[in-house]
Amino acid sequence: MTSISVAIAGASGYVGGELLRTLLSHPDVRLGALTAASSAGSTVGEHHPHLTPLADRVLDPTDADHLAGHDVVFLALPHGASAEVAAALGDDVLVVDCGADFRLESGDDWTTFYGGEHAGTWPYGLPELPGQRERLCGATRIAVPGCFPTVSTLTIMPAVLDRLVGDDVNVVAPTGTSGAGKSLKPSFLASEVLGQASAYGVGGVHRHTPEIEQNLRACGAQDPRVSFTPVLAPMARGILAVVSAPVVDGVTDADIRAAYEKTYADEPFVRVLPDGRWPQTQAVLGATMVHLQATLDQRAGRLVAIGAMDNLAKGTAGGAVQSMNLALGLPETTGLSTIGVAP
Amino acid sequence: MTSISVAIAGASGYVGGELLRTLLSHPDVRLGALTAASSAGSTVGEHHPHLTPLADRVLDPTDADHLAGHDVVFLALPHGASAEVAAALGDDVLVVDCGADFRLESGDDWTTFYGGEHAGTWPYGLPELPGQRERLCGATRIAVPGCFPTVSTLTIMPAVLDRLVGDDVNVVAPTGTSGAGKSLKPSFLASEVLGQASAYGVGGVHRHTPEIEQNLRACGAQDPRVSFTPVLAPMARGILAVVSAPVVDGVTDADIRAAYEKTYADEPFVRVLPDGRWPQTQAVLGATMVHLQATLDQRAGRLVAIGAMDNLAKGTAGGAVQSMNLALGLPETTGLSTIGVAP
Amino acid sequence: MTSISVAIAGASGYVGGELLRTLLSHPDVRLGALTAASSAGSTVGEHHPHLTPLADRVLDPTDADHLAGHDVVFLALPHGASAEVAAALGDDVLVVDCGADFRLESGDDWTTFYGGEHAGTWPYGLPELPGQRERLCGATRIAVPGCFPTVSTLTIMPAVLDRLVGDDVNVVAPTGTSGAGKSLKPSFLASEVLGQASAYGVGGVHRHTPEIEQNLRACGAQDPRVSFTPVLAPMARGILAVVSAPVVDGVTDADIRAAYEKTYADEPFVRVLPDGRWPQTQAVLGATMVHLQATLDQRAGRLVAIGAMDNLAKGTAGGAVQSMNLALGLPETTGLSTIGVAP
Amino acid sequence: MTSISVAIAGASGYVGGELLRTLLSHPDVRLGALTAASSAGSTVGEHHPHLTPLADRVLDPTDADHLAGHDVVFLALPHGASAEVAAALGDDVLVVDCGADFRLESGDDWTTFYGGEHAGTWPYGLPELPGQRERLCGATRIAVPGCFPTVSTLTIMPAVLDRLVGDDVNVVAPTGTSGAGKSLKPSFLASEVLGQASAYGVGGVHRHTPEIEQNLRACGAQDPRVSFTPVLAPMARGILAVVSAPVVDGVTDADIRAAYEKTYADEPFVRVLPDGRWPQTQAVLGATMVHLQATLDQRAGRLVAIGAMDNLAKGTAGGAVQSMNLALGLPETTGLSTIGVAP
Repeated sequence: MTSISVAIAGASGYVGGELLRTLLSHPDVRLGALTAASSAGSTVGEHHPHLTPLADRVLDPTDADHLAGHDVVFLALPHGASAEVAAALGDDVLVVDCGADFRLESGDDWTTFYGGEHAGTWPYGLPELPGQRERLCGATRIAVPGCFPTVSTLTIMPAVLDRLVGDDVNVVAPTGTSGAGKSLKPSFLASEVLGQASAYGVGGVHRHTPEIEQNLRACGAQDPRVSFTPVLAPMARGILAVVSAPVVDGVTDADIRAAYEKTYADEPFVRVLPDGRWPQTQAVLGATMVHLQATLDQRAGRLVAIGAMDNLAKGTAGGAVQSMNLALGLPETTGLSTIGVAP
Repeated sequence: MTSISVAIAGASGYVGGELLRTLLSHPDVRLGALTAASSAGSTVGEHHPHLTPLADRVLDPTDADHLAGHDVVFLALPHGASAEVAAALGDDVLVVDCGADFRLESGDDWTTFYGGEHAGTWPYGLPELPGQRERLCGATRIAVPGCFPTVSTLTIMPAVLDRLVGDDVNVVAPTGTSGAGKSLKPSFLASEVLGQASAYGVGGVHRHTPEIEQNLRACGAQDPRVSFTPVLAPMARGILAVVSAPVVDGVTDADIRAAYEKTYADEPFVRVLPDGRWPQTQAVLGATMVHLQATLDQRAGRLVAIGAMDNLAKGTAGGAVQSMNLALGLPETTGLSTIGVAP
Repeated sequence: MTSISVAIAGASGYVGGELLRTLLSHPDVRLGALTAASSAGSTVGEHHPHLTPLADRVLDPTDADHLAGHDVVFLALPHGASAEVAAALGDDVLVVDCGADFRLESGDDWTTFYGGEHAGTWPYGLPELPGQRERLCGATRIAVPGCFPTVSTLTIMPAVLDRLVGDDVNVVAPTGTSGAGKSLKPSFLASEVLGQASAYGVGGVHRHTPEIEQNLRACGAQDPRVSFTPVLAPMARGILAVVSAPVVDGVTDADIRAAYEKTYADEPFVRVLPDGRWPQTQAVLGATMVHLQATLDQRAGRLVAIGAMDNLAKGTAGGAVQSMNLALGLPETTGLSTIGVAP
Repeated sequence: MTSISVAIAGASGYVGGELLRTLLSHPDVRLGALTAASSAGSTVGEHHPHLTPLADRVLDPTDADHLAGHDVVFLALPHGASAEVAAALGDDVLVVDCGADFRLESGDDWTTFYGGEHAGTWPYGLPELPGQRERLCGATRIAVPGCFPTVSTLTIMPAVLDRLVGDDVNVVAPTGTSGAGKSLKPSFLASEVLGQASAYGVGGVHRHTPEIEQNLRACGAQDPRVSFTPVLAPMARGILAVVSAPVVDGVTDADIRAAYEKTYADEPFVRVLPDGRWPQTQAVLGATMVHLQATLDQRAGRLVAIGAMDNLAKGTAGGAVQSMNLALGLPETTGLSTIGVAP
């Protein structure tokens, strides 16, 4: 096909950088405007020294003029900023929002967890959800899921789909620091993170909680109740989601294995590991890939599943490009690598 | 009092090193024999360059002759080796075993989780358990708890004691690498650990599981069922225990806070943090101290509690010396620092 | 062209894994035999979980039968093992040795630094050296340089070529742990590396020292004397070479800048950063790329240059494939990415 | 003696925290006012959760009223702020400045490296320098050395004192992040530091350069020219100074060893390691201790010496208390631990 022109609003941050890294390998994409707010006028190289081929590209200001005239616009903006930018772009432009503004279906959940008024709901960019792949074909607006919801959902989804577990789902997820972006808070200083594990957003207040529940409902859960606790760990990238739920009576390890293998048999970006091997975040670093494993804890009566994902890759930019491919009618895997960088 | 002579069997490993670091600050202790197996004949400095004052001390072989004649003998030996060494020491000698051999009360649990024959049960060195402090006074044999059981138990204990939660307890615990000792397995190589989170012992098979359940029974739980998942994180020391359980109807945040403050009001080595602050492993690095916080997740109907502890300090050597102090009739806090090394 | 069949001997180690990661993106390469010694019979997925597309490939034993019949054979073997394997391969097969056996020209240096008899000298796989690119075209045997020699040489080469500095060159190079491979030594355990910097091979004994000197002679240095000190740092990948040398009288910062820009103007895998920006290892992680910067320390009378490189990528596998491309007459950059993975 | 009352100005930062950690173990010290600028009114626990015994202490504002009436006042303030605070304190008060304001003897150096007017010179708190211990006895003003100058000087001092090396000294020093304090710059974010080595202050511009030269002159160097390059490494604490210099003709390894052992034979806070063992930063973490080793690189004609030190401990707070002890006539080692926390 002729090449697709792509703009990125918010190109100076970590999400913007990962979008650039991903799109530079996409054979059908031509990079157009790269914009920023306070960093407009500086070069990509100053913010992303790893993107050597773009080192001298100058960032434009994030405004309607610069974003106009592209086939696709990715938004990597602070929460609350996407609606206005999107409104200025025509309905024929594919807008892919990496922020939270259009992820939730429930206005109540939005108000409870984010505050203020709900901007609306866009097609949700998690093609692995039942029926969702079809909904993304031809879409012109896409809400990229949160990183924790992506990995948490994929990690427990087969068990929910097959009714192997009850509705009380527990998620504890060690995560790297890049999910916080470049925000200059003391708690993200290297001195505070090195050698340290610490939980945050504890007790049902993390904004990704209702999004996970929304996804579980899409998998058939009647009244999902998710207890979600993220843990900041001393690594730049990666989430290891430890997800457990009470099993329904009579469920066996074979049932679990069958559910996981069946659900993901044809998914290009999810791999159920061989029996006895457990996911590691290094193995998916930089990759559009989730590694999964699940088992039955007979003694505790729980299914325990582990998922490893790179929050910036499949968790944000890789997943966003996967959805873009679907929306544009390209093969879903175009330009996306499933190979991690390890050790 | 006159000084107490102390020997350490297994002084070349990480537990041995932390015992030495701790005991070097104990005003009533005089270090006697320091022994090792294959490392006998080498110096402390070769194994523990941080113990500068002991750099030139030569390690003796671990045998009855060298361990004889001390008031206290600490055992930091591989699992299964403690019984024979202890048998050769008189009943008037205080033997403190940092291994697992004498922790479990149930022979069935022993056989299920460790295999082979159960060596027996010694007084359990967790003074914070109900009634346990008294049992340790005058004891001549002490089983030091496992590191995960110590922090997991202390993190949920007030809720169990006050019947605020049900019996299904979920523990996910990111941990540093030193808990694995100096075992030369590929998965503990720095290249495999840096930038990586990975779970192990998943699905109810980790040996610390029945020990946590045993402790919860000691707190009044009728039929505790613990789902325990440790996660290896890229840090040398520290455990962050994320512990949750379903709350009993009607429990409030105030009930939870009251339970935690009451339970630990007089405990020298446990601190419930002020409301809104969450434990961090750096804050207890090198310290005989556990930091705790708990909250109610109303939405999910669960109590979520977090505990931070240094696996080698309060989790092993600090806890062992605390129990030694009690057994010998010394003030419990003698020689133990509650101050961490941060950042 | 028709596809090139490639075998890798020693595919289970870190170098083997990085060769696989690199070659999976090479459009003209078809992977043939992947062999190992004690790991023969296991799958690629067990050793390299990040190589998802190859997860189920079984490793063959490293022997003549399995390696026969390929266009190219990469050797990622322990030192001393390459000569015998290479001898069994015909002169029409391109053999690329990632080990040290054929790097040194001087038999005396070999004996001094490695011991035993010198196996010989193969064309040296550093195309950026003067005249070296031409020598690699059509070669059927290539010795891949050591990682420290690659980055150290490239970091100071422009100054040596332009006679801006004297012959006494000082190199101090913090490095990640993957350079040590998967060797199970206590000093490479995560517990020993996390939070730690430590030097090794100090005082002119590191085996890469004569190789750096050999390269500087190839750049015109008369009698180079290199003081080289590697420092193990808590990161899995990356070398930051800090290279300095006394400047010749009258040399200015402009002379230095001119030399670096001129030397690397047409090099696809070396970038001299804009004035005032300093190389970072993250920026080249996973990339076939070296970032450089140099300046004059007027006060000390020294040129100080810094180079950042990924020891496994441009430092081994990326550089090896670059040389393979030249030897086979392919465009030098085929299949190689200059984009790092950061943060 | 009766207890010494101590105030700390700037208690909320990393230096303040380490002073508190150190002084809490000092048997003769009673903590008085703890002050801060923008953090006045908050508790110690909010800034230093590791200092559990002080968790609820409230920080006072840094002003003359609060600092008055103490025997000793430590200043842990931004550069340029110490002079005014010190002027308000009587000559009978011991003022120990952890900042740079009074370290340099040369006003020209001050202006060149720091800019502005030189505030003056106070007795320099490095007791290991020739004759310096005596100068500190009874002092009422002390300038605590910079962390890099302390370890760099101690690492090469014996060779300079014994005239084993020439005046061109090369220092490359990987360092942890805590030396930067809590400054909220993007380059100190964990995402930027993890997995990364990067140099800064390259080319003779780092402010610690003239201070190292000043110290070498105090050791007898005629015209020392120091090339100094710090490297930020992914660890919170620790400096590994790699120091080298050309040896004078005829110097042997035995000469070097003799010089180091003689120089430090009676120093309580410096240890020359046994032959063949190299310093590690973990081994001195949290300790008032420097570990050293040196060797001759015959081939390159250079002495190479390595020193490991904790920048916050012996590098700042431990060294400051050591000097305080001397100034007050206490035994130099009072309250200072030479034991590190490892692994």
